[in-house]
Amino acid sequence: MNEPKKIVIALGGNALQSGSGPATAEEQLRVVRETCEHIADLSCRGYEIAIVHGNGPQVGRILLSSETAKDVTPAMPFDVCGAMSQGYIGYHLQQSLKYALNMRNRNTPVVTVATQMIVDENDPAFNDPTKPIGPFYSEEEAKKISEEKGYVMKEDAGRGWRRVVASPMPRKIVEIDAVKSLWDSTIVITCGGGGVPVIEKSNGVLEGVDAVIDKDFAAELLAEQVEADVLMILTEVEKVAINYNRPDQKDLSVMTLKDATEYMEEGQFAKGSMLPKVQAAMKFVRAFPGKRAVITSLDKALEGLLGETGTQITFNKK
Amino acid sequence: MNEPKKIVIALGGNALQSGSGPATAEEQLRVVRETCEHIADLSCRGYEIAIVHGNGPQVGRILLSSETAKDVTPAMPFDVCGAMSQGYIGYHLQQSLKYALNMRNRNTPVVTVATQMIVDENDPAFNDPTKPIGPFYSEEEAKKISEEKGYVMKEDAGRGWRRVVASPMPRKIVEIDAVKSLWDSTIVITCGGGGVPVIEKSNGVLEGVDAVIDKDFAAELLAEQVEADVLMILTEVEKVAINYNRPDQKDLSVMTLKDATEYMEEGQFAKGSMLPKVQAAMKFVRAFPGKRAVITSLDKALEGLLGETGTQITFNKK
Repeated sequence: MNEPKKIVIALGGNALQSGSGPATAEEQLRVVRETCEHIADLSCRGYEIAIVHGNGPQVGRILLSSETAKDVTPAMPFDVCGAMSQGYIGYHLQQSLKYALNMRNRNTPVVTVATQMIVDENDPAFNDPTKPIGPFYSEEEAKKISEEKGYVMKEDAGRGWRRVVASPMPRKIVEIDAVKSLWDSTIVITCGGGGVPVIEKSNGVLEGVDAVIDKDFAAELLAEQVEADVLMILTEVEKVAINYNRPDQKDLSVMTLKDATEYMEEGQFAKGSMLPKVQAAMKFVRAFPGKRAVITSLDKALEGLLGETGTQITFNKK
Repeated sequence: MNEPKKIVIALGGNALQSGSGPATAEEQLRVVRETCEHIADLSCRGYEIAIVHGNGPQVGRILLSSETAKDVTPAMPFDVCGAMSQGYIGYHLQQSLKYALNMRNRNTPVVTVATQMIVDENDPAFNDPTKPIGPFYSEEEAKKISEEKGYVMKEDAGRGWRRVVASPMPRKIVEIDAVKSLWDSTIVITCGGGGVPVIEKSNGVLEGVDAVIDKDFAAELLAEQVEADVLMILTEVEKVAINYNRPDQKDLSVMTLKDATEYMEEGQFAKGSMLPKVQAAMKFVRAFPGKRAVITSLDKALEGLLGETGTQITFNKK
């Protein structure tokens, strides 16, 4: 396996905040510092890296705090909350990665680029919003909000009512030129939370919309645009598995497009969890049949790139 | 007067939010769109631009909402609120400026770079915090907070008690290399709110601190670092005045270092308002005696650059 050079990394939620720790900024910073040790190792190895991260819990808390305080100071729209989360998470990542690089005697610049992602106004996802965001409400409150603001509210697994928004496909990274300009010299953190979703009106105005973009699909689009050698999706498990959590669970070292299609048809991958990761990986190798995607855990990132572990997603059998 | 090329623009609060309008994100976006029309005109004229903006009202509201909702979701530390404000304001600026440029048939990239600013842990400002931030409290609440968290709380002009933080001088822009890499191709929005204040520990760790950096001094430091031709500070008035708001008010077209020093000694410039602008301008021409700073209003920016209006701050009389 040829050693790759240009890597787009998609960081899952566990790279930013531990599931068990408190949901504070301090705890996020602690987890991010550990995460950046692994990324710094990759950079020192000579890989050129861009980082895409999720923002689900963070943007949820920003929205919750904004809605809770709305009688004291105006609540912020969802696109602005997303932009805030990019600043918040990007700041922690660039601070921590810079330090981890310094400790390795590297002075590679690291920056966060606030990123807008164009989505299609006619994306079918807008007809069927599925992503719950923000605080829980009683049924009565939910109906009132729905009438007042036109939000779609759904009951969420017996825990109360929540607003749901669409999860459209990312179409175009508005700031891609800047990311490309920086690539050779700098580790860029971009498309945070999948990018702030915007639609392009006929007069050219970009307009923020209330939507959640899947960060794995955003990373895939970035990987296509910069012609990355590898799309690496880091998550909690070392390998993609079929028959997950069953006695006959089988961890996969290699998965071709054909395999992946079959497993998807069997319903092997959980919606909103492993499924979008596999789909993003498939999209990348479909775009670049000679290249590969890797799904593995953060602490196995290097071995995953070297092809020693993780699940290698390829167009064909090599 | 030679026509300059590289310009660092410091945008005052009025470029982001009108004093009279509601403090909503929608109102900010409306004002920012107008602001960007002026900046797009400068860009089309061939000037290379970086933008530094203030964040006082915005970071105040983020902090207020975070503190108000603290029983529902953990309150965010002040450095994180600053990073959020960079994402929020930067997003609006880059969206609006990109549109204004498109309308002028320009496809110049515009990006916001999340920026950390190193301050000196021993800056004397830390011994005398003066900048009020966040919500108002009763005296009793203030004392409790002071005991619990060690915050310095001060009575604020009869309106209640507020936390005050230091306003140290900016020393080093952590992400300066990225700003320089982008300069030739891209309009960069950087050092928002003066940059997120961090101190550099002896082991190289950068650590966010609770402080407010003056955005005019941050813009000045950036102008020095990129060797800008002009530091342009945009504010509400067309020219700096002495005897301000008095019958003998005199608007200044030119102000040498010597003039400025004398006026400062006379107490001509209001603390926290015109004074830091004049001081930042003086610092820039002291660093580059052949160059100039301009203080003027947003709608006179071009004329200010051309030397036709505004106050031109120079080292000597030309």
